[in-house]
Amino acid sequence: MGAEVIKIERPGVGDLCRNLVINDQKIGDNSLLFHTFNRNKKSVALNLKSESDLEKVKKLISSADVMIHNFRPGVMERIGLDYSVVSQLNPRIIYGSVSGYGDKGPWRDKPGQDLLVQSLSGLALLSGNAEHNPTPVGLPVLDIAASGNLVQGILAAIIRRGITGKGGLVEVDLMSCAFDIQFEQLTAYVNDNKEPSRSKIANANIYGAAPYGIYKTADGYLALAMMPIALLAELLECEALNQFTQDDAFQQRDEIKDIVADAVKQRTTTAWLEVLEARDVWCADVLDWSRLLEEEGFKALEPLQTVEVTGGEPIKTTRCPIRFDGEYITSSKPAPLLGAHTNQIIL
Amino acid sequence: MGAEVIKIERPGVGDLCRNLVINDQKIGDNSLLFHTFNRNKKSVALNLKSESDLEKVKKLISSADVMIHNFRPGVMERIGLDYSVVSQLNPRIIYGSVSGYGDKGPWRDKPGQDLLVQSLSGLALLSGNAEHNPTPVGLPVLDIAASGNLVQGILAAIIRRGITGKGGLVEVDLMSCAFDIQFEQLTAYVNDNKEPSRSKIANANIYGAAPYGIYKTADGYLALAMMPIALLAELLECEALNQFTQDDAFQQRDEIKDIVADAVKQRTTTAWLEVLEARDVWCADVLDWSRLLEEEGFKALEPLQTVEVTGGEPIKTTRCPIRFDGEYITSSKPAPLLGAHTNQIIL
Repeated sequence: MGAEVIKIERPGVGDLCRNLVINDQKIGDNSLLFHTFNRNKKSVALNLKSESDLEKVKKLISSADVMIHNFRPGVMERIGLDYSVVSQLNPRIIYGSVSGYGDKGPWRDKPGQDLLVQSLSGLALLSGNAEHNPTPVGLPVLDIAASGNLVQGILAAIIRRGITGKGGLVEVDLMSCAFDIQFEQLTAYVNDNKEPSRSKIANANIYGAAPYGIYKTADGYLALAMMPIALLAELLECEALNQFTQDDAFQQRDEIKDIVADAVKQRTTTAWLEVLEARDVWCADVLDWSRLLEEEGFKALEPLQTVEVTGGEPIKTTRCPIRFDGEYITSSKPAPLLGAHTNQIIL
Repeated sequence: MGAEVIKIERPGVGDLCRNLVINDQKIGDNSLLFHTFNRNKKSVALNLKSESDLEKVKKLISSADVMIHNFRPGVMERIGLDYSVVSQLNPRIIYGSVSGYGDKGPWRDKPGQDLLVQSLSGLALLSGNAEHNPTPVGLPVLDIAASGNLVQGILAAIIRRGITGKGGLVEVDLMSCAFDIQFEQLTAYVNDNKEPSRSKIANANIYGAAPYGIYKTADGYLALAMMPIALLAELLECEALNQFTQDDAFQQRDEIKDIVADAVKQRTTTAWLEVLEARDVWCADVLDWSRLLEEEGFKALEPLQTVEVTGGEPIKTTRCPIRFDGEYITSSKPAPLLGAHTNQIIL
C-alpha cells in the first residue's frame, strides 16, 4: 500500500526463509517462498549483537514510522530494542509485535507456529468429517490472520498519531487470532457449553444446517450452501427429503446429508448446476487450480502479477486483494538480495 | 477500535442475520449470531426504496467518515448510492465495498457466499487427506479475510485523506481474498504448473515436508511441525526413519508419514510431549474447546468478554485480537434492537 519496507537481516545468513524451500523451488540462491513473501522490500544487513551495528539500527528506528518484530517474548528486551527503549528514541514510532501466545501465562515461551496453534486452539476440530482425525486448515491461516490484524492495528495507530502526535505499541498473538477467526463458533459454544461435533459427511461448519457442504457427483463435486429443504427436495427430485421440515435441518443434518449425498451422485456436476442455478440456489462447482486458471471469471479478476527477479527468470505471484479507486496495486519489484540496500540506507 | 458504527436496516424486518439462527441459539427475538456480529453497533431503520428515507440516508452519508456495503454489483447504482453519487455528496468519504467476484467478467452476478468461493478457488482441495472429498475450511474464512482486508484498505485510505484531504473507493472481493490467503501455494503452482496433491495421511500443507501434520497417539492426538527427520527418528526411537535423508522429506512425505503414524500411536500424547519438548521440537497437543477453556494459558490471554444484552441474559463472546499500548479493547455494549438509534441519529 505504498510503504517502504526495510528488512534487517543477519550478515552472511539473512532471513532463515531464504533457505526455506518448499516444493523444491529455488530462484537463484533463495527459495521461491522467500521471493513470495518479500517482493518489493529492501534489505539491510546488520548484526544486532554488534554494538556498532545496533547503533545503526537505532538510528534507522529514530526516523521510522513503524517497526515490527516477531521474536519470542523477552528477546527484544535482551537486545535492547523493546518498546520502552524504542519509544524514547522515537516517540512517534508505531511498534508492532507478533507472538505465539502473548507475553503472560504458561504458554508464553512455547513455539509460536501456525500448525501448533491451530492444534491447541480447537481449530483443528472444525474441518473434515466426524470420523477423520483432527484436520488443520491446509494453509497457515493463523500467520495470515495475525499479519492482517497487525496491519489493522498499525494503521489505526498511525491515524491516532495524526491526532495525538504520539506513537504506540500494537501487539497481536497467533492464539488470540485463532480465537478471533473462530469467534462465531466459540461464541455459540461458550454460551451453551455443549461440545459440538463435525458432520458425519460433507462437514463445512459444525453449526451449519443441512445441506451445507460439498458432495460427490457422477463426475466431480458440487458445493451446496444454505437453502430450504423443501426446495432441495424438489430440485433433486428426492421424495425422501420431504420427511424433514426446515426445523430439522440442524438437529438432523447427518440424516439429511446422507440422503442428499445419495441423490447428488446420480448426475454430473454440470447437470446439477443447470437445474439449481436456474432457481437461484446457492451452489458451485469445485475446481482445482488447473481448471480455475482457465476460467474467464478468474482472468477477469487479473489476480496474477509478474515480478522481475535479480539473477533469475521473472516469477508470477498473486496481487494485493485490495483495490483503491478502481485500480489494483501491483509492483514488479523483486525480493532483495541480502544486504542489497545497506549502503543506500545506512549512511 | 473506537469507530461509531451505524447499521442502516430495513424497517420492520432489519438485517436478515437477526433471524439467522445457528445451533438453535436465540437471545430475545434475535439470533445469538446477530449479537455476535453486531455488538457495540447502532441501528437506524430506514427504507432505501422510500424517497424521503433515502434523503435521510444521504444526509447521514454527507457527514460520515466511512460507509460500507456488500450488495451485488449494480444494486447501489440502482438505489442511487454508488460511489460516483456519494463522492459528490461527501468528497472526504471512504467508500468500502465487498463483492463475491469483483464487478467484471462472467462471475460478477454469482452469489458471493463463503463456501461457494472456497469451492471455486481451489481452497477446498488444500485441507483433508488425499482420499477425502474436497474439504472446506470449517469456518467462513473468506468472509473473515475479506472483512480484514476491507478494514486495512479503509484505514489506509483514511491515512491518505489526512495528506490529500480526499476520500476514496476501497473494494475487496471474496475471490481475490481466496487467492490472497493461498498466495504461498498458488505462487508455487503458477511457477511450475504441476497440480499438487494432499498427503495420504496427516495432510496439513500440500507443499509441506514430512512430518508436518497431526497424528493419532495411544490416547489422543499430536501435532508435529517442521523438524529434521534424523532428530525425529532418534526421539521416536524409530529405526525405519533412518532410511530417509532430509532431502526425501518432501518427495517421500507419504512413506515417511506412514512410519511416523505407526510410531506415534504406540504412546500417549503426554508421553510424547515430554520426550519432544525436552529437545525443543515443535509439537503440540490437540485440544477440543472443553479442554482449551480449562488451560491456564487460555485464561492468561483473557480472550472472552461479557456483553450486556437488552432484554436478555448477558452473553460471552471473544474480544478483538489487537492490543494497543498493552490493553485489550473490549466493550460490554450489545447489538442494537432494530431502529434503536433512529431518533437519536436522524434529526
